[in-house]
Amino acid sequence: MAVLSWDRQTIMPAGGGEARAEQMATLRVLRHEAITAPDMGDLLGEAARAPLESWDAANLREMRREHTHATALTSDLVDARSRAAAACETAWMTARPAADFKSVAEPLDTLLGLVREVAAAKADALNKSPYDALLDQFEPDGSAKAIDALFARLEPALADLLPEVLEHQTREATDSPASHIPVDQQRDLGLKVMASLGFDFEHGRLDVSAHPFSGGVPDDVRITTRYDTADWAGSLMGVIHETGHALYERGLPKDWRGQPVGASRGMALHESQSLLMEMQVSRSRAFFDHAAPLFRAAFGVEGDAWSPEALYRGATRVSRSLVRVDADEVTYPFHVILRYRLERALLSGDLSVADLPGAWNDGMRAGLGVRPPDDRLGCLQDIHWYDGAFGYFPTYTMGALAAAQLFAAARRGIDGLDAKIAEGDFAPLLAWLGENVHRWGSFHDTDAVLLAATGAPLGEQAFLDHIRARYLGA
Amino acid sequence: MAVLSWDRQTIMPAGGGEARAEQMATLRVLRHEAITAPDMGDLLGEAARAPLESWDAANLREMRREHTHATALTSDLVDARSRAAAACETAWMTARPAADFKSVAEPLDTLLGLVREVAAAKADALNKSPYDALLDQFEPDGSAKAIDALFARLEPALADLLPEVLEHQTREATDSPASHIPVDQQRDLGLKVMASLGFDFEHGRLDVSAHPFSGGVPDDVRITTRYDTADWAGSLMGVIHETGHALYERGLPKDWRGQPVGASRGMALHESQSLLMEMQVSRSRAFFDHAAPLFRAAFGVEGDAWSPEALYRGATRVSRSLVRVDADEVTYPFHVILRYRLERALLSGDLSVADLPGAWNDGMRAGLGVRPPDDRLGCLQDIHWYDGAFGYFPTYTMGALAAAQLFAAARRGIDGLDAKIAEGDFAPLLAWLGENVHRWGSFHDTDAVLLAATGAPLGEQAFLDHIRARYLGA
Repeated sequence: MAVLSWDRQTIMPAGGGEARAEQMATLRVLRHEAITAPDMGDLLGEAARAPLESWDAANLREMRREHTHATALTSDLVDARSRAAAACETAWMTARPAADFKSVAEPLDTLLGLVREVAAAKADALNKSPYDALLDQFEPDGSAKAIDALFARLEPALADLLPEVLEHQTREATDSPASHIPVDQQRDLGLKVMASLGFDFEHGRLDVSAHPFSGGVPDDVRITTRYDTADWAGSLMGVIHETGHALYERGLPKDWRGQPVGASRGMALHESQSLLMEMQVSRSRAFFDHAAPLFRAAFGVEGDAWSPEALYRGATRVSRSLVRVDADEVTYPFHVILRYRLERALLSGDLSVADLPGAWNDGMRAGLGVRPPDDRLGCLQDIHWYDGAFGYFPTYTMGALAAAQLFAAARRGIDGLDAKIAEGDFAPLLAWLGENVHRWGSFHDTDAVLLAATGAPLGEQAFLDHIRARYLGA
Repeated sequence: MAVLSWDRQTIMPAGGGEARAEQMATLRVLRHEAITAPDMGDLLGEAARAPLESWDAANLREMRREHTHATALTSDLVDARSRAAAACETAWMTARPAADFKSVAEPLDTLLGLVREVAAAKADALNKSPYDALLDQFEPDGSAKAIDALFARLEPALADLLPEVLEHQTREATDSPASHIPVDQQRDLGLKVMASLGFDFEHGRLDVSAHPFSGGVPDDVRITTRYDTADWAGSLMGVIHETGHALYERGLPKDWRGQPVGASRGMALHESQSLLMEMQVSRSRAFFDHAAPLFRAAFGVEGDAWSPEALYRGATRVSRSLVRVDADEVTYPFHVILRYRLERALLSGDLSVADLPGAWNDGMRAGLGVRPPDDRLGCLQDIHWYDGAFGYFPTYTMGALAAAQLFAAARRGIDGLDAKIAEGDFAPLLAWLGENVHRWGSFHDTDAVLLAATGAPLGEQAFLDHIRARYLGA
């Protein structure tokens, strides 16, 4: 399914879409039938009574999780949710460019009703709250209670920092050098940077797709980017982000390939690996000492605008903005926290679909001091809800916090890490991540991985320290 | 499996090979389990007693054929054969370049023993002779008796013609213009010719692989070629050959996608479609009236060597040669007939593996008047036997004869077909093939398709007429 999905998004001719959908549906059904086979519950129960070595026990735990998720829903509910999601996504595709929330309100309401049924059924099966049951699909054993506490500390601290950061920046900011860079040159540079970060082209590829992603399987990891000749930095940072995801997949425990415990832990940890590479490493001052000569050589450019210092400033611009995917790392959490609160309120029924645009705009004003001119730049901007994905958004910021926490620990654990990055030597960092994160697969939960690697469960402190250091020179 | 196989041969990074082998093995097992499910025999029997519309009846016939092949062998025999084939192929990979038949004789003997067991088991299940049971895998309901009769007429007739052809050719032959043509230009031309032949790029692709093939599925047909800057004609003819295969796949009956009766009939008919495009159409004099301007435009060449007449002569050179895959259409059947007789003798035990090189060399001298200097250019040249494929070789020449027979019928059925080809208008031909061959899938056997389309079952007459017309101007 990973290969077929990659192929569909990168090189499949358009006319193959219908046949491909059937191929993938067939595999999905076979997978579902295997997991929900009539005797599977008994077998899992029997296995749980056997004495198991720790990895086997963790593997069984993850098998049971998959089995519980797969058996929690009737096939009628799965069908209804899929149909409602397809209808809502289709409506959203038209509604978004037209900034016409009303036209998608009814399909979203229908979908939300079914998502509530899904959440209730999974909550029952997993013995969790409805929101936590949805969250468990993306962040196993994640809890809204922990996220609430985390965000309750993070938000005011960031709100205090933001004006300082913006004020500090006015004194020194420069923009990225604006240049028209041909796609071939951008691709060549991307390949060079991937290789220096440790991407193994014997076990992976770089291609092009409309929406960048990391796909394939651990022994054949395929990442994509898109190119804009007017925005080389966007493409490059996308490549680095996906490379972070790819290195995680590639580093998963070889002995457990294809087993649940051998898979990546969850979205928070996955995003921590992409953001560690993109935000912590590749927007650091040290990185540009390594990268500036590469840029000059690949693009045939020169001048002060391409100095490490100028490039660094361009890569660390902060602004109050409307669109999450374009946001910098300082303001990004505001976007996520708003969505998290809204989706919880939508799920619980505290917020009606009709009141979503107003609540969104109020939240943007309160959090970031900006107000969307229309819903296209407001509550219609992300596909997630319109596709039925509730419980996903908080993992973005959990990943950003985990990235900062892991990178701080790596800095403590690796002598002269910044100097090594400045020299383009990423091997010690990759080895550290492999040892502390990648090789654990799904053996631990996220907090246990972080505790072992950094001395603490997921928290906001390292992230705030990082923001102060990078943006206030503190 | 088709997409994964295509991907493996075209763009998969080498390190993904092991994971890919497991993915494909998993799918193969799932497929085998589905076909050999315990109640499948009963269900097929029950269906056979029901009143069925003709396409359903044909579909059931093909289901039973697949079921019989799949259930005929014990899994022990399947395993042993697979292992022996892998070992023999590995030995062959070293033996061929070293021209060292002795080193592969023992693994081939082991493999041949298992192939005999397979043939005996399938013969029993299908109520056919052992050779016909193997042939049935590639050419359903094909029979050695019919092939014997066909080859007994074809061989002496061709043997009579060959000296005449060679003599005739010395009077007028020219070689293909030798030019260094960059890969990009060859690819551009290949795409243009594919499009003019009717290949639909909304439903297919052209890529590169070590061994050209046509893969994918009917709604997403993917062909490959390889490029040699010193041999543009080889690459182009490869593209045209695979386009013929692709057009057949693309034209299979849409209503029966994914069903056995909706699949292509067999290797003889498949090869007839590729050879019809490559040999009948694209080495015709008319074709070069259309193609010569394309070549000149794509390659930036000029002069007499690129005239339609010169190109046509270059594309129709005949010579007594040692290697099947490089042979022209006049001598190709000698290569095939020799292999057919040898593989029957190997299977029956009339020929021992140890005596194969001698029998090969004697056969080449008798049939073509040439003698391989070593076994690399002799009995080690083809992978087929060393991979366990017995019963495949005759389909090449059956395809060549069918191509001639179908093209002659198309000429009778389409007013001014050669003039249309000279103008680059291939639509009437593609429509004729769609109507008479493609849309039938596996509804008919090969002879029934040919009888309906041409008025006769498979024969040698149209092919011999074609050779006389093209090579003797008769």
